[in-house]
Amino acid sequence: MSDATTPVDADRLNAFCRSALERLGVPSDQAATIADSLVDANLQGIDSHGIVRLPQYAGRIRGGGLRPTTELVTIVDRPSVVVIDANDGFGQVAATAAMGRAIERAKDRGIAAAAVRRSNHVGVMGYYSRMAVEHGMIGFAVSGAAPGIAPWGGAEALLGSNPWSIAYPTRGEPLVVDIANGVVIAGKLRAAEQRGETIPLGWALDQDGRPTQDPAAGLAGSLLPFGGAKGAGLTLAWEVLASVLTGASFSRDVPELTNPVVPQRLGHLFLAIRVEDFMPLDEFVERIDRLLAAIESSRPVAGGPTVRIPGRRGAWSRAERRTSGVPLPAGLRATLASLGGELGIEPPW
Amino acid sequence: MSDATTPVDADRLNAFCRSALERLGVPSDQAATIADSLVDANLQGIDSHGIVRLPQYAGRIRGGGLRPTTELVTIVDRPSVVVIDANDGFGQVAATAAMGRAIERAKDRGIAAAAVRRSNHVGVMGYYSRMAVEHGMIGFAVSGAAPGIAPWGGAEALLGSNPWSIAYPTRGEPLVVDIANGVVIAGKLRAAEQRGETIPLGWALDQDGRPTQDPAAGLAGSLLPFGGAKGAGLTLAWEVLASVLTGASFSRDVPELTNPVVPQRLGHLFLAIRVEDFMPLDEFVERIDRLLAAIESSRPVAGGPTVRIPGRRGAWSRAERRTSGVPLPAGLRATLASLGGELGIEPPW
Repeated sequence: MSDATTPVDADRLNAFCRSALERLGVPSDQAATIADSLVDANLQGIDSHGIVRLPQYAGRIRGGGLRPTTELVTIVDRPSVVVIDANDGFGQVAATAAMGRAIERAKDRGIAAAAVRRSNHVGVMGYYSRMAVEHGMIGFAVSGAAPGIAPWGGAEALLGSNPWSIAYPTRGEPLVVDIANGVVIAGKLRAAEQRGETIPLGWALDQDGRPTQDPAAGLAGSLLPFGGAKGAGLTLAWEVLASVLTGASFSRDVPELTNPVVPQRLGHLFLAIRVEDFMPLDEFVERIDRLLAAIESSRPVAGGPTVRIPGRRGAWSRAERRTSGVPLPAGLRATLASLGGELGIEPPW
Repeated sequence: MSDATTPVDADRLNAFCRSALERLGVPSDQAATIADSLVDANLQGIDSHGIVRLPQYAGRIRGGGLRPTTELVTIVDRPSVVVIDANDGFGQVAATAAMGRAIERAKDRGIAAAAVRRSNHVGVMGYYSRMAVEHGMIGFAVSGAAPGIAPWGGAEALLGSNPWSIAYPTRGEPLVVDIANGVVIAGKLRAAEQRGETIPLGWALDQDGRPTQDPAAGLAGSLLPFGGAKGAGLTLAWEVLASVLTGASFSRDVPELTNPVVPQRLGHLFLAIRVEDFMPLDEFVERIDRLLAAIESSRPVAGGPTVRIPGRRGAWSRAERRTSGVPLPAGLRATLASLGGELGIEPPW
């Protein structure tokens, strides 16, 4: 018998998420895609993008910012490029379909792109880049986001954190680099604010562009990009790829995810690159595995742990949590139980 | 009449560079490409990648690490992907040809890639990404480099700084983001070492992976990537794109550029993405210009200068130096005069 501290079985969590989405009006196959993406984030240990989002999505459906049925319309269909209008539906449904289209095209073209506009929050970007790996391809995924980061030298938040991921096939777990371009996510500032704590310098600027340790001032100002001017340059470059090129809303026109009544009209861009167009997949895998083995067997920082490969921790966590379950904090349990109660479904514990 | 402090006319500098390369055995058309790329770096104000490289290239030709004639062989030729073997010739020649091929393919395919292996130093990556912009395309370019950066948590330099650039068309000057992935280039540590100065914390780690202010210890250890763990992840991802996928040397197998006798066998990857496959170019340009105008007119950091767009400073410098000339420090003048003397050509001042 489980209590409030026992981790929750991932399949039960998935089933709860699916049922809740279905009761909110999401078609069954789409609910399955969304639930799979959210629970996979929890399995990987990226709890900030997991089941915690379900109540937020429910609020957005009820508020009108998110349409429960995602109707995808292909508005551009060229040999190596498709552009899909997600009609204010679920980002996960649009992103999964779009990356699937890019992969399909790349099978005979070697490289293909799929753009999405009028979409919503997509969760963990590595979920989509990894889709390409299963087909012997390199996957790249980038999404727009509400503006939280200032351009370098600026005091106004005009750029999204524009999360992105690139994934490569290996003989074992894929190499997955998965990055949001803020030093931290805004949620960390909100958490510090709620606890009445200060934040470290280097996380945020106030409204005048000055470094601040006050989370409220940082939320009213802007988050710092990772890597200073270089990171700010990358964030701007990705704003164009994800939001300008796709025909989505960009910069100040993207409302906060926390506003339930306004569609975000986000953009995403996906690329699939077929390795076999460059060299035999076996040769590529031998080469990348040699690089990764050199890294993993290299001397760590004095006194530090073994050097790790990006994405491997997620894979280990997935294996571990599949067996032991997903830990859910008490506050989230209460929120999910309450949502379940409203929708007439039992909580998954 | 000019003296040792007068900036040098860019066309004269270009002609000197071409003549020197020709006397070193470089075919005339290839010498023109290399000279144009080097002098453009000076024009943009990126002097570390300009004419200062000419004596280094001369040393590498004489040492055998760089073949004066670049014989490009296409070893893979697929619908949207080409792979070119540069046969230990000049990176600039290979890169210009490769980006040209990617652009050609992208004209009817929308998106295309060109990979280069067995190449050498290419100079400023933005030179190649900008080539695509003239054709209404987005250009992406990334190059491998000798290992100078440690993987995150590691104490051994296993990754190149892997410089990269992405360029977008606008109505005016292109938006060009151009980034090498170290916090600084190794040259800054060598300069500090020569002057007997310390370096700031945050530039480099010693051989045990500890932060160091000693430039010699940093050069024996590793450079820090921009943006900590996130930047290290990007650097690794780009090592795979530029060096593993292209069939080039990677990680420890890439010798230092300063070693004149060993070919670097570098890799580069170029992507060209045709904007018209996503939306009309006019619409894209209107959208990106709107974003850039919002940035340039946004409130700067309190007391700071107007917010600037990446790549614009290079364009301003280019216009300014075309008129006023390229400033050359006395040491570089002496080196160029000496090289000119050996090759029987007059210095450009």
